[in-house]
Amino acid sequence: MATQQEPASKKQRTQPTYELLYHPQIPGRGEFIRLAFEAKGVSYTDIANEDSKNGYSKVQDICIGDNLGKEGNPPVFSPPALRISGAGPDGNALIISQTPNCLIYLGDKLGLVGSGGEQEKFWVQQLALTALDLNNEVHDTHHPVGVSLYYEDQKEESLRKAKDVRENRLPKFFSYFTRTLKWNAEKAKHRYLVGESLTYADTTVWQVLDGLYFAFPKEMQARQKEFPELLDTFYNSVKEELKAYLESNRRLAYSQGVFRYYPELDRQS
Amino acid sequence: MATQQEPASKKQRTQPTYELLYHPQIPGRGEFIRLAFEAKGVSYTDIANEDSKNGYSKVQDICIGDNLGKEGNPPVFSPPALRISGAGPDGNALIISQTPNCLIYLGDKLGLVGSGGEQEKFWVQQLALTALDLNNEVHDTHHPVGVSLYYEDQKEESLRKAKDVRENRLPKFFSYFTRTLKWNAEKAKHRYLVGESLTYADTTVWQVLDGLYFAFPKEMQARQKEFPELLDTFYNSVKEELKAYLESNRRLAYSQGVFRYYPELDRQS
Repeated sequence: MATQQEPASKKQRTQPTYELLYHPQIPGRGEFIRLAFEAKGVSYTDIANEDSKNGYSKVQDICIGDNLGKEGNPPVFSPPALRISGAGPDGNALIISQTPNCLIYLGDKLGLVGSGGEQEKFWVQQLALTALDLNNEVHDTHHPVGVSLYYEDQKEESLRKAKDVRENRLPKFFSYFTRTLKWNAEKAKHRYLVGESLTYADTTVWQVLDGLYFAFPKEMQARQKEFPELLDTFYNSVKEELKAYLESNRRLAYSQGVFRYYPELDRQS
Repeated sequence: MATQQEPASKKQRTQPTYELLYHPQIPGRGEFIRLAFEAKGVSYTDIANEDSKNGYSKVQDICIGDNLGKEGNPPVFSPPALRISGAGPDGNALIISQTPNCLIYLGDKLGLVGSGGEQEKFWVQQLALTALDLNNEVHDTHHPVGVSLYYEDQKEESLRKAKDVRENRLPKFFSYFTRTLKWNAEKAKHRYLVGESLTYADTTVWQVLDGLYFAFPKEMQARQKEFPELLDTFYNSVKEELKAYLESNRRLAYSQGVFRYYPELDRQS
């Protein structure tokens, strides 16, 4: 029996089973995690989307409600979460949550943190965290007052918030990402933020930019000339690297998630 | 000379020079980083507060404005940041930013991630990230529409936002932290969130709770009975561990930072 078990357990060690636990049918925060897998061609199970009958109830069982944690892991605050078979307590699955936390975990395992050792790892991390902050601010353009309220019930506040994000916050973030591209220009000619190859900082910043093109098309078009390194060179070259995935049916359309298109919130002229 | 240099360079390796780059005179997001140092009794320089003449201009030089990074490091989006002498590019200082990123770095170096290996590290990380999300939501109770506007110019929106945070968000976060304490009860009797000793998840959650006591005293008093493990056992035992620091003059008073006391935003009865 030992000879039969050997290869199986070896296989499991080199190719763990990754499960993404997230809401079905929206890119949302799960998309940052999907992009990490897709950029490296590593297989994963997107439970709620792949098993339309029972998948989401498994996500809800682990991530939503008042449980004290599953399989020896602490409770999850909210999706997305990752479940990695065999990597957790007593040989159970490891369950971790929080988008940046999942990215940090995968960055190391999948090789998406550059080749510059510890320092590049922390620079990649801070860029991804900053992009996810921007993601939250964009979410708040249509939900400035309460996540539990409808957009229609906070539309006046949304108009003010969206104006502030478009006029003050986007240029601040875009300037920061652009300056980082310039800092790294010798290594990557504005194609990567850190080092000489794709990291999860790139995929995470890219996804926020892509969502912004959907949510604020006029604003983004107007900003294009101001930030060509970011919105032209970087955006298009990362898009090219992700092409196979973006053209697949696994890439979900934006709808009523973080990025929403309300014409009244976009630039008006 | 070699015999004289030996101990000096050895000392530098075991005790690097940590500099905290942050705004002066407010606890703010810098406080999460201060608590990590203070909990372990590791010395650090709080530049803007310790050198009142030139300190803040050094912070601004590195963290604010349109630079392309300093000492070979990429640019910083905004404070807080950490500068660690000798740990960066070509023997220069390492400069990293983003509160959770600094905590992840220090968690490892200072021994604030428990003793349970990789899995505990990621659980500590997700708890700190969630507490910092709550910190952002609390900030938005007085700035829901725009960070660049005064509170007085968004007071109506603040009343709605604060109500949502108090009534819906606080119980959701408190329930999550409480369930984590219960999950870990066998190891820590509700005194630590992960493992058997203090981690930066504990200090980070604690700081947000402490700020909430300042900003929403009536709301917190009313919640006390609902979440005794969190607001009584955990809050007080972590406070006890931090006692020496909290009683020192290095602990700054809350004022006009993330946590502000506006009676009209608190529970009214």
